[in-house]
Amino acid sequence: MEPHLRKDIISSNWVIVSDERASRPNDYTTSNKCPFCRGNEENTPPEIMRVEKNNRWIIRVVPNKYPALVYNTKNIIETEGIYQKYYYSGVHEVIIESDEHNKIIYEIEHFDKVLEIFALRMREILKKDNVKYVMLFRNYGVNAGASLRHPHSQIIGLPLLPVRITDEMSHFKRYRSKHGRCAFCDMIEEEKRYKKRVISKNKDFIAFAPFASRFNFEIWLAPLRHNPHFYLEKNFKSLKNILFDVCHMIHNTIKNPSYNIIIHTSPCSANDFHWHIEILPKIAMPAGFEWGSGFYINTVSPEEAAFLLRSGKKASKISDVGCQKTENRKRSNSLKSVF
Amino acid sequence: MEPHLRKDIISSNWVIVSDERASRPNDYTTSNKCPFCRGNEENTPPEIMRVEKNNRWIIRVVPNKYPALVYNTKNIIETEGIYQKYYYSGVHEVIIESDEHNKIIYEIEHFDKVLEIFALRMREILKKDNVKYVMLFRNYGVNAGASLRHPHSQIIGLPLLPVRITDEMSHFKRYRSKHGRCAFCDMIEEEKRYKKRVISKNKDFIAFAPFASRFNFEIWLAPLRHNPHFYLEKNFKSLKNILFDVCHMIHNTIKNPSYNIIIHTSPCSANDFHWHIEILPKIAMPAGFEWGSGFYINTVSPEEAAFLLRSGKKASKISDVGCQKTENRKRSNSLKSVF
Repeated sequence: MEPHLRKDIISSNWVIVSDERASRPNDYTTSNKCPFCRGNEENTPPEIMRVEKNNRWIIRVVPNKYPALVYNTKNIIETEGIYQKYYYSGVHEVIIESDEHNKIIYEIEHFDKVLEIFALRMREILKKDNVKYVMLFRNYGVNAGASLRHPHSQIIGLPLLPVRITDEMSHFKRYRSKHGRCAFCDMIEEEKRYKKRVISKNKDFIAFAPFASRFNFEIWLAPLRHNPHFYLEKNFKSLKNILFDVCHMIHNTIKNPSYNIIIHTSPCSANDFHWHIEILPKIAMPAGFEWGSGFYINTVSPEEAAFLLRSGKKASKISDVGCQKTENRKRSNSLKSVF
Repeated sequence: MEPHLRKDIISSNWVIVSDERASRPNDYTTSNKCPFCRGNEENTPPEIMRVEKNNRWIIRVVPNKYPALVYNTKNIIETEGIYQKYYYSGVHEVIIESDEHNKIIYEIEHFDKVLEIFALRMREILKKDNVKYVMLFRNYGVNAGASLRHPHSQIIGLPLLPVRITDEMSHFKRYRSKHGRCAFCDMIEEEKRYKKRVISKNKDFIAFAPFASRFNFEIWLAPLRHNPHFYLEKNFKSLKNILFDVCHMIHNTIKNPSYNIIIHTSPCSANDFHWHIEILPKIAMPAGFEWGSGFYINTVSPEEAAFLLRSGKKASKISDVGCQKTENRKRSNSLKSVF
């Protein structure tokens, strides 16, 4: 079945139906047959680009072998009864960040170059016809949906603006309309003033636990100075440093963490958006109440999360598979589920 | 920290911050100390009501010992810098559906009575001041967020309308405005005509894989005749029968399934809404792309899902922990993650 989009009649949900994806390998640990490892380059689709050092590749960009959306599709809408199937184009690439299978993100010395490639590929994909938005994301750990261990990120070029982005954009616009300022810039000033949710900061970026964190240990990372577009970013060394700092803290505080890293960048040329990164550790799983309502329940306040991350306490029993908390409220165990 | 709600400044996200929840027991398998088992009644908060048979309780309703929201709270908004903390009332109850620890839903013979109690408690909770909506949900299986094995459901009385419900309501209203009919009634007619997504049907209810299923094997169950409110439902025996039929199919097709059952009922007295149940098996986990974009990716088309469920094939390798699909596209394995 060719991948296509479906819109729910009774809600705002958009779904990409893509059963090709089900065929992809799911072999998280082994490097033997890893398609991303050095020597196995013929196991990826033809390379889009690479970065070399000393005549060896250190970064490769390839099409995703099991794409969610494909390009050069029919670009039509098929009606089926009261429904529509949208055969729209998309792009799906993988950035292989290192030739070394087991590296954790903060062990990849050239990660500033990786970030630069993120920006480059986002700019390039946005130039394609029918691509309205690019979403870059990185899954680390089985519980965060990583199907392969080898360090990599993915970019999807989308034919429609994603609802999370349009929702944020409308909030940015409304806030600027009301206050004359960027909501995120104000948030950064507030977090610098309040301090308790700040996790890390350098001359260019700040990382903090958002006031309305949806997930245990959720972290946002953003430029201190207003900038709508990630792909206009230049301070990649500085960004690499703070990202490494934050990931070190995650790995120190949470045993065997799984987390998603997602870049939110402006969906248009207007100045309202403030690009930012969302880091979502996967500890407590959303369950019936969240899926049913759209509410989130967070059982670790952002203030506590920030404190634990900053303090560098090796909270060794906080793992990404939960277990119970003791009656004396020791924060030593993680939380399996919310509901 | 008293549970309270936080609204994100840059999005529509509402979060309940409730660190009391982190203390709840998470002991999925054992019945020794199960607070819901017969003989351990003193381990629950004071009972709200019970249903007896032969002088023994078969159903108990108790307050949740680790509530997401509490009643009789300050009911105020506290401003903190640019943010607000909403100390709003809520209600959180547990319906213990059976005295037997290990029963699967379709083994609970009196489940029609359980459904009747759902409706009763929903009506009662809605009468309370400050309660704007009641959400009833049931988590089964560890991956669906069930912290206890003993068969139970939960009801939360909310001080705000949940975003998923308001989103559905606006779609119902818009559809009726445009077509003069209920969107769900039209959907039911379409599914009866198309057949391929229908999973089960009786004289009062239908169960089908929604056209825009967000998740592998997502199922919706609804009354054939228009009814906005679950708690006005009367056909509990008929509802029990189709629910059992569907759950049998889930357990036949998916090994060790985990799934959420959620009731969506009208948020107001208007006639537009059509109450329905969403059943969400937890196979592929949403990952970076979904969390980042708000899109869903479904790697099992609803048509295929319905076929597998209906055909009663013991697809023994479909488990709730994914593994890879073979190159020859055998549908025998489940899917761990989407991205």
